[in-house]
Amino acid sequence: MDMTRTAGRKMHELMSDLYPLCRSITGEGVRQTLAILQRYIPLEIHEVPSGTKVFDWTIPKEWNIRDAYVKDAHGKRIIDFHQSNLHVVSYSIPVNMKVLLEELRKHLFSLPDRPDWIPYRTSYYNETWGFCLSHRQLEALTEREYEVCIDATLDEGHLTYGEYVIPGESSDEVLISCHVCHPSLCNDNLSGIALATFLAAQLTRSPKPRYTYRFLFIPGTIGSITWLARNEMNVQRIKHGLVVTCVGDGGRFTYKKSRQSNAEIDRVALHVLKQSGYPYVSEDFFPYGYDERQYCSPGFNLPVGCLMRSPHGSFPEYHTSADNLDFVRPENLATSLDAYRQVIEVLEGNCTYLNLNPKCEPQLGRRGLYSTVGADPNHKLDQMALLWVLNLSDGVHSLLDISEAANQPFREVKRAADALERCGLLRKVEVVPTAPASG
Amino acid sequence: MDMTRTAGRKMHELMSDLYPLCRSITGEGVRQTLAILQRYIPLEIHEVPSGTKVFDWTIPKEWNIRDAYVKDAHGKRIIDFHQSNLHVVSYSIPVNMKVLLEELRKHLFSLPDRPDWIPYRTSYYNETWGFCLSHRQLEALTEREYEVCIDATLDEGHLTYGEYVIPGESSDEVLISCHVCHPSLCNDNLSGIALATFLAAQLTRSPKPRYTYRFLFIPGTIGSITWLARNEMNVQRIKHGLVVTCVGDGGRFTYKKSRQSNAEIDRVALHVLKQSGYPYVSEDFFPYGYDERQYCSPGFNLPVGCLMRSPHGSFPEYHTSADNLDFVRPENLATSLDAYRQVIEVLEGNCTYLNLNPKCEPQLGRRGLYSTVGADPNHKLDQMALLWVLNLSDGVHSLLDISEAANQPFREVKRAADALERCGLLRKVEVVPTAPASG
Amino acid sequence: MDMTRTAGRKMHELMSDLYPLCRSITGEGVRQTLAILQRYIPLEIHEVPSGTKVFDWTIPKEWNIRDAYVKDAHGKRIIDFHQSNLHVVSYSIPVNMKVLLEELRKHLFSLPDRPDWIPYRTSYYNETWGFCLSHRQLEALTEREYEVCIDATLDEGHLTYGEYVIPGESSDEVLISCHVCHPSLCNDNLSGIALATFLAAQLTRSPKPRYTYRFLFIPGTIGSITWLARNEMNVQRIKHGLVVTCVGDGGRFTYKKSRQSNAEIDRVALHVLKQSGYPYVSEDFFPYGYDERQYCSPGFNLPVGCLMRSPHGSFPEYHTSADNLDFVRPENLATSLDAYRQVIEVLEGNCTYLNLNPKCEPQLGRRGLYSTVGADPNHKLDQMALLWVLNLSDGVHSLLDISEAANQPFREVKRAADALERCGLLRKVEVVPTAPASG
Repeated sequence: MDMTRTAGRKMHELMSDLYPLCRSITGEGVRQTLAILQRYIPLEIHEVPSGTKVFDWTIPKEWNIRDAYVKDAHGKRIIDFHQSNLHVVSYSIPVNMKVLLEELRKHLFSLPDRPDWIPYRTSYYNETWGFCLSHRQLEALTEREYEVCIDATLDEGHLTYGEYVIPGESSDEVLISCHVCHPSLCNDNLSGIALATFLAAQLTRSPKPRYTYRFLFIPGTIGSITWLARNEMNVQRIKHGLVVTCVGDGGRFTYKKSRQSNAEIDRVALHVLKQSGYPYVSEDFFPYGYDERQYCSPGFNLPVGCLMRSPHGSFPEYHTSADNLDFVRPENLATSLDAYRQVIEVLEGNCTYLNLNPKCEPQLGRRGLYSTVGADPNHKLDQMALLWVLNLSDGVHSLLDISEAANQPFREVKRAADALERCGLLRKVEVVPTAPASG
Repeated sequence: MDMTRTAGRKMHELMSDLYPLCRSITGEGVRQTLAILQRYIPLEIHEVPSGTKVFDWTIPKEWNIRDAYVKDAHGKRIIDFHQSNLHVVSYSIPVNMKVLLEELRKHLFSLPDRPDWIPYRTSYYNETWGFCLSHRQLEALTEREYEVCIDATLDEGHLTYGEYVIPGESSDEVLISCHVCHPSLCNDNLSGIALATFLAAQLTRSPKPRYTYRFLFIPGTIGSITWLARNEMNVQRIKHGLVVTCVGDGGRFTYKKSRQSNAEIDRVALHVLKQSGYPYVSEDFFPYGYDERQYCSPGFNLPVGCLMRSPHGSFPEYHTSADNLDFVRPENLATSLDAYRQVIEVLEGNCTYLNLNPKCEPQLGRRGLYSTVGADPNHKLDQMALLWVLNLSDGVHSLLDISEAANQPFREVKRAADALERCGLLRKVEVVPTAPASG
Repeated sequence: MDMTRTAGRKMHELMSDLYPLCRSITGEGVRQTLAILQRYIPLEIHEVPSGTKVFDWTIPKEWNIRDAYVKDAHGKRIIDFHQSNLHVVSYSIPVNMKVLLEELRKHLFSLPDRPDWIPYRTSYYNETWGFCLSHRQLEALTEREYEVCIDATLDEGHLTYGEYVIPGESSDEVLISCHVCHPSLCNDNLSGIALATFLAAQLTRSPKPRYTYRFLFIPGTIGSITWLARNEMNVQRIKHGLVVTCVGDGGRFTYKKSRQSNAEIDRVALHVLKQSGYPYVSEDFFPYGYDERQYCSPGFNLPVGCLMRSPHGSFPEYHTSADNLDFVRPENLATSLDAYRQVIEVLEGNCTYLNLNPKCEPQLGRRGLYSTVGADPNHKLDQMALLWVLNLSDGVHSLLDISEAANQPFREVKRAADALERCGLLRKVEVVPTAPASG
């Protein structure tokens, strides 16, 4: 856990590096973000040209911004993009003119209930422009006329995303997906980017896993649609998946199930949360939220859930300037990473065994697996795990099934299965082999 | 809803017209009742001769009554049929004699706990006679001898019932059944007769429905047995059905499930009650109650439930003179009719669709189905309905399934499906056609 | 119930006779126990030689003990086997020597929390010796040196068990199994021995049952393993089974389900407990406890549950000298026997019928099965049972299914089915016949 605590601090540092960049669904902000991540993991960068058809959608023009402001009659910047990249409505078209306050107001967005916070707004598919500002700033606007400038470009270019694959023994895949399209917003979703990066880095340093792991760093919605359109033939390799978002706040965990509702990933995530003792809540799938919407569309119906803390819209800081570096804490990031690692531990170890001595219990004592003269309470749990594994290892029940029946942590049950396998009392049931991973 | 309120008043007026008639399982009371209903709907009248075998039963003799009384020594009518037709035990044989009080008492029925109410008693299949009276009346009997007269006939005749069919696009049927055998009793079941009549009248004025609707106005038990025996070959056309009873009292709704327990009608009725916000309770099927007992006998096992308010036996006025025109209220009748209409709305609209763009979400924005710049809360619900319909329209989930998953009113989900179908994003899944309705 | 109360007293008397014997998993104590039981039922005694392989296990040497003590310097017996056979760790090897207190302490077991009670310890498969004593006795040991003697033999011999079969109409079997390996311990498990004996005796005096009943009186674990190994070919005849233990204490009933979790025996036991009104709790199967561990091992997976009162380990007296003749009460034994008898009553009567008049209800009145003029509340329940049996007797639902749906005692439903069968309204559905019982 100490390693994990260090990881929490380092994830927060990574977020600090990424925080100032002005990300959107396309553009240099995304490229700079992925370049920083490449210091941690050998991310492959994909560029998809504007105008490319991806299912029902079309890759939009690329948006880049250098500067933006609203100036008063004295030339003073009343609203300044360089103070916060949230000030500009994302995908605003270039503009440079004087406007009357009355007209300007139609392009201004604030939060009257949270007068010090700047809201976050986008207009990807509707060409317009606008500024976001604190309500106090809005109320301070009294002059008749202002100068507005958005020095941005909206031209043919590319949609950029990052992908990283860790090959495993099997070509069956675990998908970890996060969105990289939000500007200076921390919980949603620099926290997800940092967690996915560190999880990928740790897995890279581990022994070759059972599953192949695929990490996606993509713009929300259009990114997952693009990736699915380009990889349509191979998506059935994805046996389990998680969308990583909102993992840095102090709220309890939330697991949103996949559309399949009882997929292995759903059972694993809920088992880990239950056994970990972390406070959590389980939510049924609903077709809103993050990229699980696309992975779980009926034409794919992939087993992809969403393991997060406070869900989108459930905390007031959501999509405002208050979702900043103070709002996410290293210790929360660390605990979230730990939960993800435990999920992977269960996925990796969730095999099915056959009890080779199925008629009556085997004599554990002469194999050194039984405490004599009975009563040592410290060995009780292990003994129960041994008996549960023996009783349910009928070639049908997986270790996760057994953990759930026994209401014991997976790790304890796995340790018992390993001990019984070493004694020759258990044999792993061969799963039908799949083609080796091509990376 | 204003139209519904008017309907509530008019249903109560119809009940007032029917209240004085002395109905039983056969006889002129039933004929007069059906004749009044023919002012509202073109009811077809069926007459089945006494002695006809209907499954295990035989159509009984026809019972008619002109007068009945108990007179004291001064010739004063102590009990008078013309004051309440409940005073005579239904199907009493003719009698005209003097009897000692001691003997008379064996033929008198009262309610000691409710001393002002007259109970309702029948003796259809056991030839005897009797009077019902208030307990105060009973206690006032002090003379030695009384004159009793029941001027009734119990002769070969007919069992009478009414039937009305509204043809639909399909020969698949919705059955609405109510019993017409009770004399001056309002909740059980003039309320059911009135509701069924108004529902039939409203459906007649509506565009041609998807289903064929069959309304039955029959004496309880022997009537449904008779109808089933005469229509045995066609009962499998009945895809959904409801027995209408006790729909005018002020209690919460009760839905008693069909024997199938999870038939579409069961799910529809409970969905409507849940989403309507009306207080309600759900009951499992049990082989007692009303004509659902026959429709749900194991040889038929039809999907027929019972949508009512307070169930039989659960209110003290049940089967007494206190179940009168004051006990049922126009506003309750109106709300009950509304619930029935909503059930029919769901049955009519509960189709299954196929999302024609199943891989990832379609771009709703360019079809005018998405609110831009995101945050208008008034359109939020519609947007969720759109996304739910798209996500679950896989040719398997019906709109009712989707409404339940989304926890949204069926109407909202149906509106979303209609909008998506107009955009070409959805196609109705063809149901295997059935033969056209023969009426 | 009076007969049952007498049985409670007699079961307690039998336990008093068995209490002084020093039982273990082998030896004369078991033989003497079974000899006493032969006064009640014609038990067949089986002797299996030491060294016999039974699945993964080997029948151990036979252990017999004549005397054992710890003496102080004055030759006074500080610990005396003849005062309580719990004083010696079961299967202790012979020993006769002087030992220093320091060394002796390693072989002494007491309960500091319960200073007056002697614990019960065994060491079947680990050759050692030891004494159990009250903590007060332990604290009183102050001398430097003691003389210890265990006059026991651990030699080639036999494992002994008793078996009694009551042939039924069918070779399908009901297994009743109890363990006979505990010395002077009453709830666990002289109570089980007494109940099984009286149940067997009562069944012997009853008319020939539908099922064949097999009673096993075996040492725990090694006994059931031995029996299963010797009867492997015939165990599939066991259609239902119960392990009898801890049936004399005053706690509520506990039913521990079989590994199948919804076998008929599981449903029957829980139905009986629910309808009996006895307080009870239901427990899922877990691979610990008594011989159900072996019957429910995955290679057999027999439908064997455990109907008890307070489960092992849940009462402080468990496996101590406080589990004595005062701890178990005749009235508790009587109620437990009643529950077992009710379980057997349901198993015997749980047939499936076909309603021969399945279309609509039959007219019960003309068959004398219907109370006329309706309202006698004393006959109401029977009428409901009749209607439930008719409605659900579709050749699929058993009488137990019907009892559960009707929430009525099985006996009431069975009585209704019998009445309907007599009237020709019901026909028993033939179950595929099995070979006649060979005993």
